[in-house]
Amino acid sequence: MAYSTGSGRYCGRTNLPMGEFGLIEQFFRDACPKANALDHPLALGIGDDAAILAPVPPGHQVVMTTDTLVEGRHYWPDVDPQALGHKVLAVNLSDLAAMGADPWAFTLSVSVRTLRAAWLAAFMKGMSDLTSRFHIDLVGGDTVSLGADPSSPESFSVTALGLVPQGQALRRDGLMPGDCIWVSGDLGDGEHAVRTHTPARKLLWPEPRVSLGRALRGIAHAAIDVSDGLSCELAHLVIESRRRSGLHLQVQAVLPALSSCLGSLPQAAIAAGQFDIHQACQNAASSGDEYELVFAAPESASAAIAEISGHLSLALTPIGRVSEQSSHDPYSDSDPVVWCDHAGLPVSQDQRPRGGFDHFAAQI
Amino acid sequence: MAYSTGSGRYCGRTNLPMGEFGLIEQFFRDACPKANALDHPLALGIGDDAAILAPVPPGHQVVMTTDTLVEGRHYWPDVDPQALGHKVLAVNLSDLAAMGADPWAFTLSVSVRTLRAAWLAAFMKGMSDLTSRFHIDLVGGDTVSLGADPSSPESFSVTALGLVPQGQALRRDGLMPGDCIWVSGDLGDGEHAVRTHTPARKLLWPEPRVSLGRALRGIAHAAIDVSDGLSCELAHLVIESRRRSGLHLQVQAVLPALSSCLGSLPQAAIAAGQFDIHQACQNAASSGDEYELVFAAPESASAAIAEISGHLSLALTPIGRVSEQSSHDPYSDSDPVVWCDHAGLPVSQDQRPRGGFDHFAAQI
Repeated sequence: MAYSTGSGRYCGRTNLPMGEFGLIEQFFRDACPKANALDHPLALGIGDDAAILAPVPPGHQVVMTTDTLVEGRHYWPDVDPQALGHKVLAVNLSDLAAMGADPWAFTLSVSVRTLRAAWLAAFMKGMSDLTSRFHIDLVGGDTVSLGADPSSPESFSVTALGLVPQGQALRRDGLMPGDCIWVSGDLGDGEHAVRTHTPARKLLWPEPRVSLGRALRGIAHAAIDVSDGLSCELAHLVIESRRRSGLHLQVQAVLPALSSCLGSLPQAAIAAGQFDIHQACQNAASSGDEYELVFAAPESASAAIAEISGHLSLALTPIGRVSEQSSHDPYSDSDPVVWCDHAGLPVSQDQRPRGGFDHFAAQI
Repeated sequence: MAYSTGSGRYCGRTNLPMGEFGLIEQFFRDACPKANALDHPLALGIGDDAAILAPVPPGHQVVMTTDTLVEGRHYWPDVDPQALGHKVLAVNLSDLAAMGADPWAFTLSVSVRTLRAAWLAAFMKGMSDLTSRFHIDLVGGDTVSLGADPSSPESFSVTALGLVPQGQALRRDGLMPGDCIWVSGDLGDGEHAVRTHTPARKLLWPEPRVSLGRALRGIAHAAIDVSDGLSCELAHLVIESRRRSGLHLQVQAVLPALSSCLGSLPQAAIAAGQFDIHQACQNAASSGDEYELVFAAPESASAAIAEISGHLSLALTPIGRVSEQSSHDPYSDSDPVVWCDHAGLPVSQDQRPRGGFDHFAAQI
């Protein structure tokens, strides 16, 4: 890995400020407290060609995910660096949560135009606060200088590893007929913030649902996190589960059920008369950057799920159901997701959330 | 991870070409043949929030490394895409090799301005040829569109995992007094290619020394790969080993010993009378992008090392020795590396390779 040679990389070959990059290497070495992946005599963190991780606990598997945030695409140049440091790790932790995995170790690749010590310190503060809370180790990385050209967008890439008991990872493709669909927390702030350019806490400081993912092991049949919008994620769950099971599965999602899990921004907008509750539910169903979990579990698990909700002080709302389609069925079309009203009747075309099957179909 | 939602990521929120990104997702899914990390019923590759890797074999540890290549910094816009796909994985495999690890799984983060199908296919061909040879699985990734602005440099980031028997990883910090220092293959082509703008095979198609790293487990005390130049890497070995052992270690490296492992480019330049053999050795000692291994082993291992060399058909050249300094010692200065002539006398200041201790000292 390149932290180890992050400064050496520039020995005698470029005109990069070597001393400065050496300081950065030292800075990253010490930025985050050590947690589980390095807490072992056989482990080794930043400072070699690669990190050596502590032996995987018996009966566990490694899961691996990566996400990159690019300036101008995923955040604006004037972003609070502490929020950015939080978010680039949080979105990866959210992927681990959606697998039911315990956070373990991660690498960080940083591409920046110039080294601004105070900015990077704030960035690492946002990141290290999360590493402490979720017991994940920064084990290595890479730092690239892009040069001073302001049109070169900066970027931050994290690859995170998690641990999960063998065979207990929460996959996307495990939906079963009769499953109830649940969503954690609230939805809608992400969409509202983007549409109205409001600096929303949820958009800047997403909370990865790691404890929920862990608690759902052995209970949920399938799970996914909401990065692109609930409607999109439901389609992912159905399409992957159809592939695996060969069953013609479909989710009937109840649009008005979202009214009980609206975020504070759409709630305030309704109170101010800016739009009605139906519009708010429609927006919430397509709201991205939420990082809530959507999961499927059998009816019999409802009491256990209520208990998890109480234990975590986290709202868990049932918003739909999985069925297997037959030719006799009133919804026997090929849509993976049908949005319904409270009476179970499909909502009209213009009331459907964006980001549903129509968009998704174009992509695969 | 974002391949899973790589297309979904853009649902209803941006004006990116969703169908195109969906094709890319499909393209990455199928670009590389499946090898060891996914060859298990409990494993799962691209297509979920995170990849689920096969259980780690008993008695093994995971090692983790990451490297990013940025256009204009690490390669030029007119690079052969197949060579680039090879190189971005090869430099990570080289880090695994330097740990003595077996390649296992990797993720790929791609940031591109536009999606050029033929270019990406060539890129993935270069990468998938390596995955087949080294039995490593592409398990996930992320694709970011940078927009069309030609001043936004593209970049490719790989995070790779390897497996190594517990406690047998080759670290940098294991030098012991009396160890012999060896280097694999040849040196000098990297420096020559950069200086003369020659498109050298070594610079474009580095060969990761995975088999050598594996063979050196239990034999070598320490190892590192040559990404920044031999002189730099030797300093890394000494400084890390001093930290760990508390001994005042030093490497005496024999500059003329490099004459027996010069690459074909400097050999041709000598034959053409462009410079003498001393200059060639000096250049070779500071030549980066070589991806050879430098390792330290006790004198007693010399026969085993000769056998490895024969078995792998790979030159392994002894180029120096580790000593512990005392006040009586003729080299008792603080330099981690002293470059000597055949008689064991330090070469003069102007004959020292660039990228030695003087540069390194400025960085830490």
